Amino acid sequence: MSSTVRGFFHPKTATGASSLIPAPPWQYSGDLLTVEYRTDPARVRELLPAPLELADEDPGAVALIWADWQSCSASREELLDPVRAQYREAFAVVRCAYRGRTYSRCVYIWVDKDFALVRGLHQGYPKKLGSIHQTRPHPYGPAPRIEAGARFGATLAAADRRLAEAVFTLREESATGGFVNAHPMLHHRWFPSVEKGKGLALDELVESGAASSEAGPAWSADAEVRLFAAPTEELARLEVRELIGGYFRQVGVSWDGGRLLESNTSGAE
Amino acid sequence: MSSTVRGFFHPKTATGASSLIPAPPWQYSGDLLTVEYRTDPARVRELLPAPLELADEDPGAVALIWADWQSCSASREELLDPVRAQYREAFAVVRCAYRGRTYSRCVYIWVDKDFALVRGLHQGYPKKLGSIHQTRPHPYGPAPRIEAGARFGATLAAADRRLAEAVFTLREESATGGFVNAHPMLHHRWFPSVEKGKGLALDELVESGAASSEAGPAWSADAEVRLFAAPTEELARLEVRELIGGYFRQVGVSWDGGRLLESNTSGAE
Amino acid sequence: MSSTVRGFFHPKTATGASSLIPAPPWQYSGDLLTVEYRTDPARVRELLPAPLELADEDPGAVALIWADWQSCSASREELLDPVRAQYREAFAVVRCAYRGRTYSRCVYIWVDKDFALVRGLHQGYPKKLGSIHQTRPHPYGPAPRIEAGARFGATLAAADRRLAEAVFTLREESATGGFVNAHPMLHHRWFPSVEKGKGLALDELVESGAASSEAGPAWSADAEVRLFAAPTEELARLEVRELIGGYFRQVGVSWDGGRLLESNTSGAE
Amino acid sequence: MSSTVRGFFHPKTATGASSLIPAPPWQYSGDLLTVEYRTDPARVRELLPAPLELADEDPGAVALIWADWQSCSASREELLDPVRAQYREAFAVVRCAYRGRTYSRCVYIWVDKDFALVRGLHQGYPKKLGSIHQTRPHPYGPAPRIEAGARFGATLAAADRRLAEAVFTLREESATGGFVNAHPMLHHRWFPSVEKGKGLALDELVESGAASSEAGPAWSADAEVRLFAAPTEELARLEVRELIGGYFRQVGVSWDGGRLLESNTSGAE
Repeated sequence: MSSTVRGFFHPKTATGASSLIPAPPWQYSGDLLTVEYRTDPARVRELLPAPLELADEDPGAVALIWADWQSCSASREELLDPVRAQYREAFAVVRCAYRGRTYSRCVYIWVDKDFALVRGLHQGYPKKLGSIHQTRPHPYGPAPRIEAGARFGATLAAADRRLAEAVFTLREESATGGFVNAHPMLHHRWFPSVEKGKGLALDELVESGAASSEAGPAWSADAEVRLFAAPTEELARLEVRELIGGYFRQVGVSWDGGRLLESNTSGAE
Repeated sequence: MSSTVRGFFHPKTATGASSLIPAPPWQYSGDLLTVEYRTDPARVRELLPAPLELADEDPGAVALIWADWQSCSASREELLDPVRAQYREAFAVVRCAYRGRTYSRCVYIWVDKDFALVRGLHQGYPKKLGSIHQTRPHPYGPAPRIEAGARFGATLAAADRRLAEAVFTLREESATGGFVNAHPMLHHRWFPSVEKGKGLALDELVESGAASSEAGPAWSADAEVRLFAAPTEELARLEVRELIGGYFRQVGVSWDGGRLLESNTSGAE
Repeated sequence: MSSTVRGFFHPKTATGASSLIPAPPWQYSGDLLTVEYRTDPARVRELLPAPLELADEDPGAVALIWADWQSCSASREELLDPVRAQYREAFAVVRCAYRGRTYSRCVYIWVDKDFALVRGLHQGYPKKLGSIHQTRPHPYGPAPRIEAGARFGATLAAADRRLAEAVFTLREESATGGFVNAHPMLHHRWFPSVEKGKGLALDELVESGAASSEAGPAWSADAEVRLFAAPTEELARLEVRELIGGYFRQVGVSWDGGRLLESNTSGAE
Repeated sequence: MSSTVRGFFHPKTATGASSLIPAPPWQYSGDLLTVEYRTDPARVRELLPAPLELADEDPGAVALIWADWQSCSASREELLDPVRAQYREAFAVVRCAYRGRTYSRCVYIWVDKDFALVRGLHQGYPKKLGSIHQTRPHPYGPAPRIEAGARFGATLAAADRRLAEAVFTLREESATGGFVNAHPMLHHRWFPSVEKGKGLALDELVESGAASSEAGPAWSADAEVRLFAAPTEELARLEVRELIGGYFRQVGVSWDGGRLLESNTSGAE
């Protein structure tokens, strides 16, 4: 007699309770600090595999975003065991063109929990582990309120090396929280063949975005950002040529799956 | 020619820039989750060295408190490099009587950063490192608002073992955030002699409290709490006999030194 | 003009230098502590999806293995930046039958680095992050030598909860290091469809094993093991009914790809 | 009725079981990687408070040492719960003269466990937490054997910034493991007064060294080392002017208290 195993992801068991990640929808509450800047468009293009192309307008625009999240499944049970809900991330987003549309695309991303890493792989985010910190607003004491002049710091490290740091000074409420990460996401889901030299076992181009979202007012901010080189990281190749602006925003979002645009996996095997 | 070294704490250098902790005042912004309960008063008394005695009223009362902090020196520079400002802690407080007054006394405490550990030793808090998590309120998405019915979880682990977990459900605004941790702190600062068998090199009884504080409304909460045994931890000896209540509060505080009440170090050597 | 991106895994870039994991072969040096025991065979069977079946002989046998690794790519450069090479893992292995052959199969596994987690997903190991410790042999001081009577401890925690702990006392050199993890590995590589309700995008049954290996003498050991329940872990369902034995061994291995046995992904979509 | 509390350090309890550190003797097994170099002697002198003076010979010599430890109390029980025994450290040692004798003195040190941090404070080591890694020798697979040509890497980070990294290539067995850390240690035990502006509550000059030790053969090594600046770290001020040499050695040591040379605490209050 054979068995059926359950669970959205590994490890699959008779009950499904062990799965590293639950089935979507996934819900998130978090604070976002965004700095947008222009880099050499050639440095963006080199990260866009065919048939993706540079966005027509402002093709060198980059958003570097820090997020301090609490996330959960539909049951929300993770929120009551917060080691399973809380994580932080920092990520770099560019824009690209595909079939005449403009998309956002995450090219680098670091998180500090395993469930966040694997949820990201599912969505096509190129996640690694890192150490991420950002100042949190607070209504009392020395931490900043959400108000003009409030200052927030944000840092990213991986493998014991600092990769990025930024300081944001809030200016005023803003009609927007930035334009680089404002499109649907266009990601690849790549998984190599287990057999040597056989290419990819999974090679999908997917589109996704929030299933629902709510947000507080966006704030514009003056921002400073510094990127640092590291042997196995290339974030610093997206060098800062010209700052566009900074933003702070508190959001609630949910994600409930994406859409498969292309699958090249049959050819890969 | 000899030198002078500077700094509030180790390592002392020519500039003082390396000191693990800055000189007070220290400032804090944070969220507190408190559960108060009664244990066997004998379990409290065994933690009170002479001449400390049990408090007259409700001598078995214990407060178990989780705090999610951002802290800084007077310069506030740590807030912009938040890995140096943010930490979490969980601690157990009892009350005691000394010279006719009632004091609060922290008997166990865990934090997750070195600067917090050593600041605590300075203040007489018996700090260890641990892994501490608590749900944070958030205005958007699935995380709780600060409102009736909102649920917060809180957990504590050390040396890869869970030591405590609690769940709080907010009920209503409250005139108080609890009574166990509401007195000045009465702590010992103990530091053993470097010479074997010579007792203590530092044996001080000190009193301290916030230099200033501000706070949002306290909320009462229904609380559940579970304590777990571990080979080198005795928090679970403060077993829960009767729950008193739970509280949530956001606070801003500063600490700027304490007062030496007794010093027994001359006798110790 | 479009680009080509390089790298064995995410994130893929123009140079390939950012890939979280390098292309195989992967090389490993490590110390293994293994405890083998019998559980209820029904608990093993429930983890074996069709067409896998229980092994004919000793179907309830489980190996719980701790490993302290240094790993690298063919260049071996990671060994000189050891934060990128060192990791620890603990894993549970059972045996199963497939097309008349007996295989080993890892049903639960925890590691403490991202590169190890993702290498494992590539191989079909159901990896999560955990905190893993094992006593290391050492020729001087209080740590154990590799000799009769030497004692080694091993522990596993995840999400701030201890999941397993064991103590091993070496007895004598042994002809074997255990039988449960001695077969080729039979794993599933499962990756869900990005589209909700569409099943699996990748559903492969793969076989793999070491491309080469060397090892010191195996030692038999008396072992004690304790498993602990947790909300999102089911290791403790593989309850210990009868101890078979313990083992210690130092090994060097390489892995250079596996073999695809079945692919059900076309049907899944 | 009042109580007596027990334990070598905080937290003190009725049983003493909670103490963050046990009473000495403390025992250690570990591997040491040492690079010795010359810096500007003025940079050493500025770290030596009066009446300490520069060593007469080679006053600018610095040893930067990485150590991978397993440590325990006399009971050795920590070795079987290795999360309580294992830690890593990196530290900088200089020499100094005091009353006509030459001493070694640790001026900076980072460890990755709380018990190691507080044991160090007891001994006068200026410990902080850091992230420390060093290649471990291994008899199989790609990790280095202990033999000519073997290469070991070592890195140090704190607060998410890399502070130092070194590479060692073993040359041959050596009569010595270095000279900078070869003298008795001369340390200050400083603890500030709890009252603001009152100076030090504890201000001791102490001497200590191993109570016993054993070691394998020392190996000389070619070494490269790089130091990096950070806002709250001054290790990089001990800039490398001239490399002296590198060393690898496996050791077993015990520590069982030191000797008080001077106490200035009465004057401080």
